[in-house]
Amino acid sequence: MSKIRIALNGYGNLGRAAERAVLASKDLELVAIFTRRDPSTLSTASGRAVSIEEMPAWKDRVDVCLNCGGSATDLEIQTPQAVRYFNVVDTFDTHARIPEHFAAVDAAAREAGHLALISTGWDPGIFSLMRVCGEAVLPEGSSYTFWGPGLSQGHSDALRRIPGVAAAVQYTKPVVENEERVRAGERLELTTREKHTRECWIVLEEGANEAEIRQKIISMPNYFADYDTTVNVISREEFERDHTGMPHGGTVVRIGETSPGVTQVFSFKLALDSNPEFTGSVVVASARAVARMAAEGTRGAMTLLDVPLGKLSAESPEELRAHLL
Amino acid sequence: MSKIRIALNGYGNLGRAAERAVLASKDLELVAIFTRRDPSTLSTASGRAVSIEEMPAWKDRVDVCLNCGGSATDLEIQTPQAVRYFNVVDTFDTHARIPEHFAAVDAAAREAGHLALISTGWDPGIFSLMRVCGEAVLPEGSSYTFWGPGLSQGHSDALRRIPGVAAAVQYTKPVVENEERVRAGERLELTTREKHTRECWIVLEEGANEAEIRQKIISMPNYFADYDTTVNVISREEFERDHTGMPHGGTVVRIGETSPGVTQVFSFKLALDSNPEFTGSVVVASARAVARMAAEGTRGAMTLLDVPLGKLSAESPEELRAHLL
Repeated sequence: MSKIRIALNGYGNLGRAAERAVLASKDLELVAIFTRRDPSTLSTASGRAVSIEEMPAWKDRVDVCLNCGGSATDLEIQTPQAVRYFNVVDTFDTHARIPEHFAAVDAAAREAGHLALISTGWDPGIFSLMRVCGEAVLPEGSSYTFWGPGLSQGHSDALRRIPGVAAAVQYTKPVVENEERVRAGERLELTTREKHTRECWIVLEEGANEAEIRQKIISMPNYFADYDTTVNVISREEFERDHTGMPHGGTVVRIGETSPGVTQVFSFKLALDSNPEFTGSVVVASARAVARMAAEGTRGAMTLLDVPLGKLSAESPEELRAHLL
Repeated sequence: MSKIRIALNGYGNLGRAAERAVLASKDLELVAIFTRRDPSTLSTASGRAVSIEEMPAWKDRVDVCLNCGGSATDLEIQTPQAVRYFNVVDTFDTHARIPEHFAAVDAAAREAGHLALISTGWDPGIFSLMRVCGEAVLPEGSSYTFWGPGLSQGHSDALRRIPGVAAAVQYTKPVVENEERVRAGERLELTTREKHTRECWIVLEEGANEAEIRQKIISMPNYFADYDTTVNVISREEFERDHTGMPHGGTVVRIGETSPGVTQVFSFKLALDSNPEFTGSVVVASARAVARMAAEGTRGAMTLLDVPLGKLSAESPEELRAHLL
């Protein structure tokens, strides 16, 4: 069988991780990396960088384009654009706006006769699969999602926007005691504060007012005010040494009752050393499903909830039934 | 939308559990329970028992028939038979013989123009989904399945076949220390003995030779010889009081490395108070997917690996995208 031809659109953390995952897959071939930068200045592992201006010329040389734009703002524009030329995968992750993004991509994909898998990754993505499977199988019950321990990009950005903050990261941590009780089957009612804590590590600019900045952080609405938030001021050196990784993870739990007093606990956990590398791996497995389903005639937009999981695998259905079922 | 019309084929532990799950689902309607026994003697919650002889007459009144035969031997015969008349779900669980069962059911289903989802439940079933998803996303890595703590039907049967044993149950337990180390991301190489222990609770017949029976159990090949096995002799009273539930569960772990030294841990756990009730719930959610995919034109045999998980849910794709993705 010939290899599935993959293009990347964007080369940040996620693009680099996806490139690595494609290069490690025997059934996939990386043919192009579209970039808004000057391709000659881009140092890639594959040497496949080309200007995004050339995208239309690649129309018949790519089976699936992986949109690796770093933010929802990028993807909102990039996915409907790229789907004119290719089947597409993206990681659009603004949960509240998924229906709107789905509709826009669906229309563009149908017009072009392509297939687009949106909002893949782990949340939305693998976690969504777990929520839907848990609730479908255990319709009478309670659902929980705990995030972390992990680095939250949005909250780190919020810290960095505060005047006087030179560098910052924010780790979201589950309240371990409550997470453990839920995983053991207790149907707790938990407030925001009882589910997660927020831990900030910041480097101050010279002359910054530490007390004022601490107060600004812990009282910041939406981001920190509803949580038990701790703020640690550290040196630039310590920051560079200990806080440049991108770990993340979390837990999805469904506690169901199938008859009075009979409790069934369904729980899923990810513990990730690198959030972008795991997301990239999910994106690349998703590309396989898109190539196969497009070849079968599926068109328009879909999410992982529409994908038979066997199609993520490099193995054939026969091999999966014989060895993994 | 009209309800999906469900029939059950068989009314043991699994049939009763499936009946309960169907009756609790607003989008499903239980129309018949086929039984080999005299239907007038069968006490059911729904009052829908009919003789299995009448099955052909129900051909156009059932959307999906759930084969609830208790053993692989039953299903091997029942699934190809029932698929002549209906779309079918079964829980065929002899892993090594799934390809053969798949082929037989596929041929019969295609001949009749029906769809059959085989080997659903939790292992094979939900655990298979986790193994395939974990390996597809993390192709470089190690996989683990731990079973229990839970009652193993096959091993309990093996104990009961020993002369002098009046009643018996066998609990499979994971070696918790090793399970925890794996869940924490250690890629251990584990022998059979290092993964599970086997705990037997037996009631002896009067005059039975306890020492001889203990020896027979711990040295029984395939079943107990390769494990650390403990044998507890108890009274009939204690047996009836403490050992008639059917708890089970287990854990599937995939530990992957996405680049040198970057470890990603994907782990799924079920802790079930009642194995048959959970299995029945999976079977009933599977029926929804079969009804929908049959209506879309899918024919032949498939497994959960071929089913988009959104189709297990009573909610529409739009609702799932808006609320659970």
